Amino acid sequence: MQDCIFCRIITGEVPADKVYEDDKYLAFLDIAPINPGHTLLVPKKHYQDIISAPDEVLCEIMKLARLLGASVMKGLEAPAFNLGVNTGKEAGQAVFHLHLHVIPRFENDGHKMWGGGSYRGGEAGRVAEKIKKEMTRK
Amino acid sequence: MQDCIFCRIITGEVPADKVYEDDKYLAFLDIAPINPGHTLLVPKKHYQDIISAPDEVLCEIMKLARLLGASVMKGLEAPAFNLGVNTGKEAGQAVFHLHLHVIPRFENDGHKMWGGGSYRGGEAGRVAEKIKKEMTRK
Repeated sequence: MQDCIFCRIITGEVPADKVYEDDKYLAFLDIAPINPGHTLLVPKKHYQDIISAPDEVLCEIMKLARLLGASVMKGLEAPAFNLGVNTGKEAGQAVFHLHLHVIPRFENDGHKMWGGGSYRGGEAGRVAEKIKKEMTRK
Repeated sequence: MQDCIFCRIITGEVPADKVYEDDKYLAFLDIAPINPGHTLLVPKKHYQDIISAPDEVLCEIMKLARLLGASVMKGLEAPAFNLGVNTGKEAGQAVFHLHLHVIPRFENDGHKMWGGGSYRGGEAGRVAEKIKKEMTRK
């Protein structure tokens, strides 16, 4: 897709620091890294997000993400990594071409996880019920 | 494992607000939710993290996570969701039993993505090289 920046990176029209490539997937450095080595893993075929990707792509990309996580840790001497997939602009998805974030993490690197809240009264039960209903509908 | 809180939730010894269960996987509400409906998805078999989980589990859990994401959005009327997997304590992993976070997101919900940095000079190329070397070693 001509207006998709990741499609243009895949065709080579836009440069990127590539760390892995095969016939179906590409991994390259995020240009605004949370930590050095923050990598994006994408399928070469354009899917808007994880919801629209077929099972086969989910399986293959997850295995590659695991390998990429291990490689990012070894290559950057990082003890840990985050894997993240944002779906929808409200979740921080900025490019609508499925991509997985693999982010090396270091002790005291200054990044904090989002703070967690809590449920009051019967709220948790009511919330769980809403999700459960959707899960059993499929 | 007796000292693993998620194993104890799986056996039913510790209560949880469950939203999905089959013979191999369980999903339940995080007790410290980033937003209401923040759900954890775990394999019933104990794996320390995503690195130690076999391919089959990765594939199955990712398909379930996609379904869970869609269900969390529909059930909570959320326009978006984050999927996250933390590997290692420096990445925020608090329980060492593989779990995927599925977090519904809303417009202006007050949660910000981590700020991104930037690379200077030839840093990006050098960093990419370190990861690429590990990827091709496998």
